[in-house]
Amino acid sequence: MSQSKHPTHISDLEAAAGNGLMNRRLFLTGSASVAGGLALLTATQASAAPLEVPPWMKVPGTHMRPYGQPSSFEEGVQRIVGGTPGVTGSGVSFTPLEKIHGTITPNGLHFERHHSGVPDIDPSRHQLLIHGLVERPLMFTMDALMRYPTVTRIQFLECSGNSGRSNLLPQPQQAPLGALHGLVSCSEWTGIPLSTLLEEAGVKPEAGWVLAEGADAAAMSRSVPLEKMLDDAIIALYQNGERLRPENGYPMRLFLPGYEGNMSVKWLRRLKVNAAPTMTRDETSHYTDVMLGGKAKILTFPMGVKSIITNPSPTMTLGQPGLYEVTGLAWSGAGKIARVEVSADGGATWAEAALTEPVLSKSFTRFRIPWQWQGGPATLLSRAVDETGAVQPTRTQFVAEYGERSNYHNNTIQAWGIAATGEVSNVLA
Amino acid sequence: MSQSKHPTHISDLEAAAGNGLMNRRLFLTGSASVAGGLALLTATQASAAPLEVPPWMKVPGTHMRPYGQPSSFEEGVQRIVGGTPGVTGSGVSFTPLEKIHGTITPNGLHFERHHSGVPDIDPSRHQLLIHGLVERPLMFTMDALMRYPTVTRIQFLECSGNSGRSNLLPQPQQAPLGALHGLVSCSEWTGIPLSTLLEEAGVKPEAGWVLAEGADAAAMSRSVPLEKMLDDAIIALYQNGERLRPENGYPMRLFLPGYEGNMSVKWLRRLKVNAAPTMTRDETSHYTDVMLGGKAKILTFPMGVKSIITNPSPTMTLGQPGLYEVTGLAWSGAGKIARVEVSADGGATWAEAALTEPVLSKSFTRFRIPWQWQGGPATLLSRAVDETGAVQPTRTQFVAEYGERSNYHNNTIQAWGIAATGEVSNVLA
Repeated sequence: MSQSKHPTHISDLEAAAGNGLMNRRLFLTGSASVAGGLALLTATQASAAPLEVPPWMKVPGTHMRPYGQPSSFEEGVQRIVGGTPGVTGSGVSFTPLEKIHGTITPNGLHFERHHSGVPDIDPSRHQLLIHGLVERPLMFTMDALMRYPTVTRIQFLECSGNSGRSNLLPQPQQAPLGALHGLVSCSEWTGIPLSTLLEEAGVKPEAGWVLAEGADAAAMSRSVPLEKMLDDAIIALYQNGERLRPENGYPMRLFLPGYEGNMSVKWLRRLKVNAAPTMTRDETSHYTDVMLGGKAKILTFPMGVKSIITNPSPTMTLGQPGLYEVTGLAWSGAGKIARVEVSADGGATWAEAALTEPVLSKSFTRFRIPWQWQGGPATLLSRAVDETGAVQPTRTQFVAEYGERSNYHNNTIQAWGIAATGEVSNVLA
Repeated sequence: MSQSKHPTHISDLEAAAGNGLMNRRLFLTGSASVAGGLALLTATQASAAPLEVPPWMKVPGTHMRPYGQPSSFEEGVQRIVGGTPGVTGSGVSFTPLEKIHGTITPNGLHFERHHSGVPDIDPSRHQLLIHGLVERPLMFTMDALMRYPTVTRIQFLECSGNSGRSNLLPQPQQAPLGALHGLVSCSEWTGIPLSTLLEEAGVKPEAGWVLAEGADAAAMSRSVPLEKMLDDAIIALYQNGERLRPENGYPMRLFLPGYEGNMSVKWLRRLKVNAAPTMTRDETSHYTDVMLGGKAKILTFPMGVKSIITNPSPTMTLGQPGLYEVTGLAWSGAGKIARVEVSADGGATWAEAALTEPVLSKSFTRFRIPWQWQGGPATLLSRAVDETGAVQPTRTQFVAEYGERSNYHNNTIQAWGIAATGEVSNVLA
């Protein structure tokens, strides 16, 4: 792996795997450059005529706003909202992963999963109770909580149903990436370590689990191992710098790094320390993994290692043959991403992608690799490996364990087909 | 420095400097905890009565929205807008640094500085021209630019006038932190290395500078050293994941990590490669540093090493004496923050604060230190040192060089006074 300061020239690109995948070195130096005379990319020769003065340079622009919004030309960059018929406020909305870039998900586009809509909570009337197997049951107002020591970390959140049953159909769905895999997002979370609050309450020796309950009309509740609560769990108060949005649990949510999203209970109002799991509706009839043969796994918490190519992705069409950046996101509930491999020939050969620094634990890691598309058909795949050595399964491996009707924890390798026309589609690898 | 996994108990806190500053170890383990029986913090004993069911648990909440907004209870978290009288769209808006937390600035609250308002640019009609001392003048449409290789980095942007003349008055201003020092923000930027585009155009040997011009009505323009353009400069397209907001240069801006903000020209439309600086209005009559004695420095680019305590800060009032988290932000245009020291006794003694990982180059670094406020008067200061060894100057040192009427590059140590009543004010150190 070359980390040389010397610029890598696009003309020097060398093949790293079949069907046009090039050495990632171009993205490791951070200073890609093009050799003289080579028109590999897509600029056009400029005329010598003076630049036209566009209309927006002829009049002063608008004044400043106290709180900014996206450009009106970006109105199409939205969450894709899918409600559950007949159940008010229940459903999901998907992050449009193919329309954003980098690793942070803007707060307006973080995915949602609600069981009874978004409550409008007055923080001056909201409290958090810690009780059960503790020496001192404690009640926290928002003002009281704001005094506690905080931590800040960039971490992903993924719905356990992301890429679920709908991605196991015999005929792959043709839809934008967000609608297929957009129940995952990544934010900078700032909040209070649970360990501080639980130690203050005094956890009794027989305690092993903590029931977390939300203040929505569904009183969504899940049992969390005490060990996780004392490890990296936080009461999240800020997301990407500002206070949580209502749909992400305002005024406070539990945040359990790497665990399936629904356990990071939003609108948190109660933590009850127990000896055993409570077996709530949301951890028995929901959020259990039905396996091939009908047996079910319950209390399956960490999200597996996973990756997805965000660009190109389905419903897009490539332009002229030539050099493209193949880029995507990788993450793991077990820790850091160790490497991401990309194939352009359906898995026959693989090349290692460049990872954007810093690679953080339980966070989105963006990967990039140069690809020389020759104009013929191709099948693009990405395969992530995390620091524990875990690797994404193929669809065949996953189905052999879970069958084709499993809703949860689908982290299979995803394939995109590129037609000779440039059209990108969802295909089976 | 202890990085032990063993929880640090608040009761074990040991003094690290005068007037209550405690060892930062509490924040380094990431698992602060409180010893049994100790009521150091602010929870209250909970009653055994069942929890009240609040009104928002009795009815389903609202449905999902395509693009989220903050809670209505957070309407007060806004930029503080200050226009220039008689000049449409000219002025500044400040990030409310005391109301946000972590290191990322949400896009709605990023500071603004405009010279002729915010243009509403149609990206399908916007182009970027690269010309001057190049082999091949090039024109880029947005669609063409979107094909190029990208990089992603978290970096700050600071107006050269931040903490300027108004913070050198003999009587310190009493205002919220954002209004004093809020012309600085930090985002995840994704864009195209300038080195790629300039190499494609073919820079001639006699080139040394690049003029960057914006497509606002002021045609804001600055000269940038070619060396910087070939180093870490990018054409920024995405900010915190989504396309730039209009007030931050939609559809594209120059981004020069660590350099004074106005050089990261917004609404970028033209880059002209030259032999020498162009000496535009914005780098001669504006954005020059008038020194004591009347001489002026021009073309002063990197922002100095700086830090600020965000909490507590002026116009806040501390509650009961006891343990507080003193936290703030540090940054440097020269690279990474090496350490931040905090004093609670006006600079007589200093203790080292904990830095939130990862510490990134030319980025916000959050620092935290525990402080046992005894209820008496105190003067809180923070002092940052960067990886080059540069350290923040005192006000006295700065004034000896720049006088008291300097507008730019003020990175002096800031002091907050704490009264016995708990009131926090802006004071001279």
